Amino acid sequence: MTRPTKLDDAAVKAFLDGAKDWAREGDQIVRTYRFPDFSSAYAFGARVALACEKHDHHPELTIGWGHATVRFTTHDVRGLSDRDVTLAKVCDAFYSA
Amino acid sequence: MTRPTKLDDAAVKAFLDGAKDWAREGDQIVRTYRFPDFSSAYAFGARVALACEKHDHHPELTIGWGHATVRFTTHDVRGLSDRDVTLAKVCDAFYSA
Repeated sequence: MTRPTKLDDAAVKAFLDGAKDWAREGDQIVRTYRFPDFSSAYAFGARVALACEKHDHHPELTIGWGHATVRFTTHDVRGLSDRDVTLAKVCDAFYSA
Repeated sequence: MTRPTKLDDAAVKAFLDGAKDWAREGDQIVRTYRFPDFSSAYAFGARVALACEKHDHHPELTIGWGHATVRFTTHDVRGLSDRDVTLAKVCDAFYSA
């Protein structure tokens, strides 16, 4: 796998401008998705977990009744990278599916 | 399913005295489990999620690389109940397995 490319503030802002449901919290990007119950939130989390394992880039994933929150950061660059944005978009695609 | 029985402070303390890795945070009990990687943390979370779905009593479950945190509370009693303690013990049994 290629090394992650650190994103500068302008690049993070460009992503967030096109992804209004995501927010920046320091070195993380975070989004909370809503669901009608625990099972569907968990099913979404399962897809996210497997996709992230495949990319070897792991989020912090919080699942509860009716919600799932995904947080990405890239420890290797001590900030945000192209990998975070790539996987954020994967999560959004799962949610839209 | 029978209704949950609210635990008074003494009953919560009795549980915590015998379960040192759990802590009380307000109306929640919480424990963080450690793992060698994301996959094993996720696998543990999967067992917890399925057991909780079976009991229809759902935690907030946070999974990341090398860790999984489980939080229980019982909204129906606005506090902690026997269900929280029952499922906390289920989680501990999965971790010990």
